[in-house]
Amino acid sequence: MSTRTPLMDDSVRFAGDAVEILDRRVYPFEVRWERCATSEDVAVAIERMVTQSSGPLFATTAGMVLAAREARHEPPGAAAARLRAAGDRLIATRPTNNHIRDAVAALLAATADGPLANASGSDLVPAVEAAAAEHDAGYRAHSAALGAHTAGLLPDGARVLTHCWADAYLIGTVRAAQDAGKRLEFVCTETRPYLQGARLTAATLVEMGYRPTLITDGMVAAALADGLADVALTAADRVTLDGHVINKVGTLGVALAARHAGVPFYAMVSAPDPQAPTAADVAIEHRDGDEVLHVLGARSAAEGVTGYYPAFDTTPPHLVTRIVTARGVYRPEHVKEAV
Amino acid sequence: MSTRTPLMDDSVRFAGDAVEILDRRVYPFEVRWERCATSEDVAVAIERMVTQSSGPLFATTAGMVLAAREARHEPPGAAAARLRAAGDRLIATRPTNNHIRDAVAALLAATADGPLANASGSDLVPAVEAAAAEHDAGYRAHSAALGAHTAGLLPDGARVLTHCWADAYLIGTVRAAQDAGKRLEFVCTETRPYLQGARLTAATLVEMGYRPTLITDGMVAAALADGLADVALTAADRVTLDGHVINKVGTLGVALAARHAGVPFYAMVSAPDPQAPTAADVAIEHRDGDEVLHVLGARSAAEGVTGYYPAFDTTPPHLVTRIVTARGVYRPEHVKEAV
Repeated sequence: MSTRTPLMDDSVRFAGDAVEILDRRVYPFEVRWERCATSEDVAVAIERMVTQSSGPLFATTAGMVLAAREARHEPPGAAAARLRAAGDRLIATRPTNNHIRDAVAALLAATADGPLANASGSDLVPAVEAAAAEHDAGYRAHSAALGAHTAGLLPDGARVLTHCWADAYLIGTVRAAQDAGKRLEFVCTETRPYLQGARLTAATLVEMGYRPTLITDGMVAAALADGLADVALTAADRVTLDGHVINKVGTLGVALAARHAGVPFYAMVSAPDPQAPTAADVAIEHRDGDEVLHVLGARSAAEGVTGYYPAFDTTPPHLVTRIVTARGVYRPEHVKEAV
Repeated sequence: MSTRTPLMDDSVRFAGDAVEILDRRVYPFEVRWERCATSEDVAVAIERMVTQSSGPLFATTAGMVLAAREARHEPPGAAAARLRAAGDRLIATRPTNNHIRDAVAALLAATADGPLANASGSDLVPAVEAAAAEHDAGYRAHSAALGAHTAGLLPDGARVLTHCWADAYLIGTVRAAQDAGKRLEFVCTETRPYLQGARLTAATLVEMGYRPTLITDGMVAAALADGLADVALTAADRVTLDGHVINKVGTLGVALAARHAGVPFYAMVSAPDPQAPTAADVAIEHRDGDEVLHVLGARSAAEGVTGYYPAFDTTPPHLVTRIVTARGVYRPEHVKEAV
């Protein structure tokens, strides 16, 4: 099956009065939708990691719509206060996810914190719905632009090594390459401990008409040295103004292996972080080491060991060939121009 | 529990008339001994990967003892022929495992192909038993010497990053360090797809009194860049005369990460391979890609993907700090002196 809209690209949807969120923890082994009847349900789903990557952005705008609907009988003032409280609750679920913070801020600026500060609940509902749709569309347009820039870097027939799950950036890249008539092949790392590569990236590429090759995370250097791929491509969770790439742990190893094999390493980010002049300004999140000791819920390590789980690593600019942003393609030393 | 003899160091044992082989496929989640009543049973166990690494060496000498006992009522000539046939059968199980070939050759040279060519079956039995014990002891002495050389490279308090399972070399290193009163700490990669690091290395180090830190294979570069280890240490399946290290896939990534972090990378091998002047002389075994799509028997990848599984990778000499052999410690460019 080949499709322009893989399931992961439309993983938050309205279903009647509720919002349904695709459970990325089990996809594609199970296609399970978490039904959220209230904005609080959405917050709990985000908290429990039902959705990740760009998923929380769409979940947040949908959660704000539910919050506005919950306040539809409230008078002016109380309705706006209720919407702000729902926004605070959503932001508190994952305080380091910029998507959530930005979506809440954008929706409030367009409504309760802006022109509709004194609107009644019934007037807020359509305004929040419109602002949510606009925010979602803006993110999609942004990702499509970024994808087009990335596709421009890939020659016809390129064999692309991916790490983890680059979400809308990858989908945008594939769509743009297909529009340009470029053939691509993919080699994906499985990305332990959560297997985002083996599950999300692999399943989405299969949906889009490819037959990816899967490797374990330890095989990247061998695969590139063996000539299995022509380019290494990942997303970046954060890019500093001086061109450091902070991304899912394993990315540094990919960049080192790419340099060793003489293939380019490209990182995709919507824009560099103006708050982060250099890598020292970015705190690396460490997650529960217990995850390293398990695979898909089953114990995979001997008793008596301690897991260590830095969620991200930092790739210095000298190992990065190009950084692709929504505004275009930059050498790492010039990426601050993309702010 | 701290012990000088971890289970993995004594994983082939005689039990009455039979040989029992620890099943490394499930250890330490299950401590299961495969009972082999005949030399053919031993061959089948080796073929089915019940034991790996140095395990087939001990299984082979034990299998040859069983073969001699099976031939104890045979007249001269027939007894020797039966022993040779058993050796051929054992070698055929895993044609690229040098341990098996060398053990068979040593036991035959000391008996049926040497001074006892015309012995009866009943005379061959004690001779094969003695040759088997001598071969086992020789390998243990060899590994202990290698371990002592490795321990000499490690400062007191060293934090050692391991990859995969270095078997007798690692056990020898730990024993020598303990004898020298050196404290060590360990960081182990889990080593997908078979999880030898998470299972065999981790369990053995726990048995020997340590509490290893476990990381996924993608975390090596981050862990070393974060200063989690002072040295990277692996075995080598093969070292070429010009200092290339062929070892479990992932080793090249470890070496690249060690170089990036400025920590030394040491590889352990009993001796370089005189048949391999350089890396082009070593064929890299590719195993069934399906293994990459599973963890502990459970599917871990989306449908529609193809697994790629090079069992080994090649680390060039410029990334190798030292090669430790049974004869001593060498710079890679001088390792041919250790032949």
